[in-house]
Amino acid sequence: MIDVNKLKNGDRRTLAKAITLIESTKESDQIKAGILLESLVQSQNHKSFRLGITGSPGVGKSTFIENFGQYLISKNHKVAVLAIDPSSPTSGGSILGDKTRMEKLAVNDNAFIRPSPASGALGGVAQKTRESILLCESAGYDFILVETVGVGQSEYEVANMVDFFMLLILPTGGDELQGIKKGILEIADSIVINKADGDHLKAAKQTQAQYQSALQISAQSHFWKTQVLLNSSIENKGFEDLYKILLSFKDVAEKNLHWNQKRQEQNVSWFDSLLKEIILRKINSNQKNYSKLKELNQEIIQNKKTPLKAAMEMMELLNFDKIKND
Amino acid sequence: MIDVNKLKNGDRRTLAKAITLIESTKESDQIKAGILLESLVQSQNHKSFRLGITGSPGVGKSTFIENFGQYLISKNHKVAVLAIDPSSPTSGGSILGDKTRMEKLAVNDNAFIRPSPASGALGGVAQKTRESILLCESAGYDFILVETVGVGQSEYEVANMVDFFMLLILPTGGDELQGIKKGILEIADSIVINKADGDHLKAAKQTQAQYQSALQISAQSHFWKTQVLLNSSIENKGFEDLYKILLSFKDVAEKNLHWNQKRQEQNVSWFDSLLKEIILRKINSNQKNYSKLKELNQEIIQNKKTPLKAAMEMMELLNFDKIKND
Repeated sequence: MIDVNKLKNGDRRTLAKAITLIESTKESDQIKAGILLESLVQSQNHKSFRLGITGSPGVGKSTFIENFGQYLISKNHKVAVLAIDPSSPTSGGSILGDKTRMEKLAVNDNAFIRPSPASGALGGVAQKTRESILLCESAGYDFILVETVGVGQSEYEVANMVDFFMLLILPTGGDELQGIKKGILEIADSIVINKADGDHLKAAKQTQAQYQSALQISAQSHFWKTQVLLNSSIENKGFEDLYKILLSFKDVAEKNLHWNQKRQEQNVSWFDSLLKEIILRKINSNQKNYSKLKELNQEIIQNKKTPLKAAMEMMELLNFDKIKND
Repeated sequence: MIDVNKLKNGDRRTLAKAITLIESTKESDQIKAGILLESLVQSQNHKSFRLGITGSPGVGKSTFIENFGQYLISKNHKVAVLAIDPSSPTSGGSILGDKTRMEKLAVNDNAFIRPSPASGALGGVAQKTRESILLCESAGYDFILVETVGVGQSEYEVANMVDFFMLLILPTGGDELQGIKKGILEIADSIVINKADGDHLKAAKQTQAQYQSALQISAQSHFWKTQVLLNSSIENKGFEDLYKILLSFKDVAEKNLHWNQKRQEQNVSWFDSLLKEIILRKINSNQKNYSKLKELNQEIIQNKKTPLKAAMEMMELLNFDKIKND
């Protein structure tokens, strides 16, 4: 059992155990996890800052988080780092099980680092990370850094569970593309040009101007204009600007009632997708249903059935009226 | 009953009736609609071009479609126009029931125009339009123009049901924003600067340069670079370029096997969301379930329950194991 008081007092081993419980797919563990979360929800820390960080491999996310994390701690924050890596377990996730890449942060008493493995196709990644955020907040961490390497839909999922979403890019200077996926630029609240130091500084400034100009035609929220910042993790330059921007975002968002509203909307849409996913999982756990679903998907791919027709057939098999008339 | 042969022969009244049947929410009609679609699926016209068109009010969508539609007909195409307007019925949709805004196209024997009303919150808009696309194709229409005014999620929904997605903008010249929502720019396969005529021509060219430059940092698919075109509907200039671009897109997409693959992916994800929506609708049709769902949503908004806990409570009420163990 998880000792709730220990957790609330910020005991890191208890927090780690609680996240392991949340991540378990055993049904008995899931019930325990539900009870645990329920007992914590009243004491939720709504003052936390949930910061999503994405960027292509090689952009320097680890070093950035290692150093920015320490900067935040120097500002009296407690920092939790949750890393989402939806890479398949076989291919070897690039950010998993790799605490060593944030050596200094990992041993800091005010930091907690946790990679979140993927847990199947059914949106499990996001689900467990959301719960982990809540657990970290209950344990007193007030800056939650959610990192993703950007495979599949993970950036969108992360953007949908944080207060502020940040994209790290490289100072390429010219017009080179940086493997940024469609739509990511526009959901970023801030773009940080990393490695803006030494020989790269000039290119970084060019990149900054280029992105600032491009963002002029992008849609912006009514109270916030996407910021393009320079950063050097090795020279520890840029953190102060970034920190100020994060605080001013929170300030403006709270004044616009956007801060809480966004979290509420995220929760409502999370509930909706959770419910759908759990139901689909239940359905799939029956072999007959599972086979039928696979068969229908094949027929759709081969243009033998329209999706509507397939959905109707599936509903017939499920015999849902039992539930309806309960 | 719908006369399938008449429909296949392109009879417009039969097509209109078939779409009305599809749009009906009566359960008996839905069964008939399923049978109808099933009988048509074998004769599907996979040679059609599904073109999504979006743009803010005032950008000139109606005139554009009126004239481009006639241009397409002059190139021996048969043109269907489906308009999605998710505005609430009370506020009065701006593109609904308004055939008169495309007077010449509406009376052309090779055109079919149909507004699609919104049908509730449960993703009904997209669902019915997708079915309508299939019906139009069965009736021999090979250019399907799906228009949306851009309320709510409708652009994303439309982008996800067409082969090519186009954004119409105004020639503002400068750096003014045009009310384009986040993410739309990046999902557009082409951006068309409309009203590029007379006094606006210079501004249109500036806007073109600005968007071309901004798109340099946007993610692009591996085989297609977003095109920025000028168009004048009143001077009938630009249609030829646009038409050539559409054909070349199709050509390249087919060579990359992207064309069919995209349609297959769209169908599979449509099936998935259809199934989830139908199940949720079934659940909601029970008063007890409906009340509980509303209550849980409220508790989530008030931070009294986490979404996971709420989902577990809902699953308990639904008693899904009946289905599981069938």
